[in-house]
Amino acid sequence: MSGTAQIGVTGLAVMGRNLARNFARNGLTVAVHNRTAAKTRALVEEFGEEGRFVPAETPEEFVAALERPRRLVVMVKAGEPTDAVIEEFAPLLEEGDVIIDGGNAHFEDTRRRERELRERGIHFVGAGVSGGEEGALHGPSIMPGGSAESYESLGPLLEKIAAKAPDGTPCVTHVGPDGAGHFVKMVHNGIEYADMQLIAEAYHLLRTVAGYSPAKIAETFRGWNTGRLDSYLIEITAEVLAHEDAATGKPFVDVVQDRAEQKGTGRWTVQIALDLGVPVSGIAEAVFARSLSGHADLREASGALAGPVPEPLDEKAAEAFAAQVEQALYASKIVSYTQGFHQIRAGSEQYEWGVDLGSVAAIWRAGCIIRAAFLDRIRAAYDAEPELVSLLSDKRFGEEIGAAQEDWRAVVVAATRQGVPVPGFSAALAYYDALRAERLPAALTQGQRDFFGAHTYRRVDREGSFHTLWGGDRTEVEAG
Amino acid sequence: MSGTAQIGVTGLAVMGRNLARNFARNGLTVAVHNRTAAKTRALVEEFGEEGRFVPAETPEEFVAALERPRRLVVMVKAGEPTDAVIEEFAPLLEEGDVIIDGGNAHFEDTRRRERELRERGIHFVGAGVSGGEEGALHGPSIMPGGSAESYESLGPLLEKIAAKAPDGTPCVTHVGPDGAGHFVKMVHNGIEYADMQLIAEAYHLLRTVAGYSPAKIAETFRGWNTGRLDSYLIEITAEVLAHEDAATGKPFVDVVQDRAEQKGTGRWTVQIALDLGVPVSGIAEAVFARSLSGHADLREASGALAGPVPEPLDEKAAEAFAAQVEQALYASKIVSYTQGFHQIRAGSEQYEWGVDLGSVAAIWRAGCIIRAAFLDRIRAAYDAEPELVSLLSDKRFGEEIGAAQEDWRAVVVAATRQGVPVPGFSAALAYYDALRAERLPAALTQGQRDFFGAHTYRRVDREGSFHTLWGGDRTEVEAG
Repeated sequence: MSGTAQIGVTGLAVMGRNLARNFARNGLTVAVHNRTAAKTRALVEEFGEEGRFVPAETPEEFVAALERPRRLVVMVKAGEPTDAVIEEFAPLLEEGDVIIDGGNAHFEDTRRRERELRERGIHFVGAGVSGGEEGALHGPSIMPGGSAESYESLGPLLEKIAAKAPDGTPCVTHVGPDGAGHFVKMVHNGIEYADMQLIAEAYHLLRTVAGYSPAKIAETFRGWNTGRLDSYLIEITAEVLAHEDAATGKPFVDVVQDRAEQKGTGRWTVQIALDLGVPVSGIAEAVFARSLSGHADLREASGALAGPVPEPLDEKAAEAFAAQVEQALYASKIVSYTQGFHQIRAGSEQYEWGVDLGSVAAIWRAGCIIRAAFLDRIRAAYDAEPELVSLLSDKRFGEEIGAAQEDWRAVVVAATRQGVPVPGFSAALAYYDALRAERLPAALTQGQRDFFGAHTYRRVDREGSFHTLWGGDRTEVEAG
Repeated sequence: MSGTAQIGVTGLAVMGRNLARNFARNGLTVAVHNRTAAKTRALVEEFGEEGRFVPAETPEEFVAALERPRRLVVMVKAGEPTDAVIEEFAPLLEEGDVIIDGGNAHFEDTRRRERELRERGIHFVGAGVSGGEEGALHGPSIMPGGSAESYESLGPLLEKIAAKAPDGTPCVTHVGPDGAGHFVKMVHNGIEYADMQLIAEAYHLLRTVAGYSPAKIAETFRGWNTGRLDSYLIEITAEVLAHEDAATGKPFVDVVQDRAEQKGTGRWTVQIALDLGVPVSGIAEAVFARSLSGHADLREASGALAGPVPEPLDEKAAEAFAAQVEQALYASKIVSYTQGFHQIRAGSEQYEWGVDLGSVAAIWRAGCIIRAAFLDRIRAAYDAEPELVSLLSDKRFGEEIGAAQEDWRAVVVAATRQGVPVPGFSAALAYYDALRAERLPAALTQGQRDFFGAHTYRRVDREGSFHTLWGGDRTEVEAG
């Protein structure tokens, strides 16, 4: 028996509800189900006029409401709740049906679930969905993994509800097999952390070194938003900074506690990058900056440490400095994306996903938190050269960052002198300079490792591994 | 039935063999066993005169050779080989016997093994052993975890073979229950990565900015080694830098490929720190610097990027700069240890280990790779104030780093201007300045998170969680 709904959504908290409405608003018949039926009824009562909903009270009813192959979107908490829901529905499904997990699952869980369900004849699609509640309703960026076959059946539906890039393309693509979609969503979030940290540093410098008020900084960000930094995050930064707290009349940003929180995908990004051997220092510094800000005890205990107090610049110098900060922000942003795309490339190689990096950039152009004009330039770089080793080796990005590097250095120098922490700007610049370096001091590191642990080293002039008898006569021997 | 050997070692590769010899040289009767008996026979043939060895060809013979409670040191590869050996021996043991894993196990594996063996009445001691082959033979730093009862039986034996600190104390202590020992060893290695990276950066600056030759830098490091930087790693750095390659007559460091390798404990340290919410930016940058150095493709593709070429200073300026680099190195080193000890404190709280940080510093004073005069000052800081929130809040370290901070900034400024990557120095300084900061821009981050994800924020002036209706009239509502 099969029903008429082209898609079903189970789990009707705000993200699930908004996705279901988005499907319905786009002309699809949507089966809806929730563990507690009250939420299902509320959805239909409140938004029933937006489209065709088929409310289901039980898993059996829900499954029966779906046309074949069935497509069930699961919108529950990542982790055990996801496994529980899968275990509830999988026995009711038939070969070729598709379960879509739209939560923020760890890609390794997604790989496991896909494997287990594949053995039972069911397609499992781990789909990253970015854009928050608003995105879910009006058009998110969607990053589905899973089999190519599942995408044939699912893709056209997702294209209807996805955000549309400025050129009209839907922000969804078949990212790759099994965990590829959730992996790419994870890196998206890691880049988001880095972007936000860089913006925070730019704000901090404009506040303390340029001596600008939050309102004035909002204006500066609005200006930047008309240029190459044009992006959702810059736009909302201006909104947040311009906002005044009604209760006190103070700038909103001054009444908020300066302790940043996090939910975990930034941390995962760095942990996985470490496993893959990809340096993602910008994302790591962003995650660390958040945790550091939350360590009230450490910060209190360190208040008496010596250091400079920033002296605000005069108006004219401040203006010139602000222009340099824009350069530093843009250059550091290029590095963050370089690191993030390197991680996706490395993950894709490791798991044999064949991810098309240009397509990833393309589907981030709208709907998601890091949406930006910038991503169209990344798409263009990968479209021109799909095997691009690094974004920094793209001619245009190389030239842009090269043109920015003097101002970038000036900003890091000013921050260092004035005692303003810019871990993101500094880490990005160190990455840039390390890549440029003809020789790195890593040869010394290898020498030390050989000295204390006989870990051997390679020579620049001969093949093979070598060890020096440091404890003996210091001759060199070829290692086995 | 029980034998006469006070301790047994199974797994006679170089580390196991040297530990067995160390026990025997210190008057203990040592049962020795290896999967292939040839290694056991070779050990007794070659080193039998050093003490009392009881060779065993089979696991049964090995176990029978040990006095009760039996103490078996397992020296095999971390991971599955360790589990295999445990499974081989555990059935032959009796209640109260002790298995010691002296390999570099992940502390979570150690926690699991300890739990499983405890249920079978067997003590499991995960013991970090640092000092390499030489340390194993002449006196390592030993970090045993496990039950207090096991340490009563095992401690006196370990104290015999451990390195002795300058004041004569053996470098071994009961670190704490289950995985505490391997956790502390892991952080030891993380700090070692950071120390090595900072030394590499100092070398790189002296080479490119001061314009010194490797021989001259060796001399500089030898000078530093007579001061507050006095340590094994500084000592061997001078040795490596002074070494000349026999084949070419060039400085050794110039014929070694500048691609650093790693085995994994540095990576683990950062991954676990992320789980614990501890900012260990110095260790992370060290791990990333190693992986970056190994990405030949990225480095080749980035060679054309614009940037300054360092211009060596004149002799007098170089000398002054070298003195500043010493300050930067020392200050950054204080930060690395601050971060590492923070991680141990956080791990100890998370797993309820009750680790005594002063004792950890004390047992690192000799035998291990990061042994240094410096550690006696850390021990003193924690002995004076066991609940010290941060090393930076110790009066003496606070004053030292405060006195160094101007030169530290000058070095980061010079490196930034001249295009020499100093990710470790910069990250440490950013950490220092972030801790000093009265306000961090994390308030903006929280504002952004509330804007795009309704993640709420806290206010500086009222208790509770709040959300601003950004998409509506921007009033503030109290969050549930």
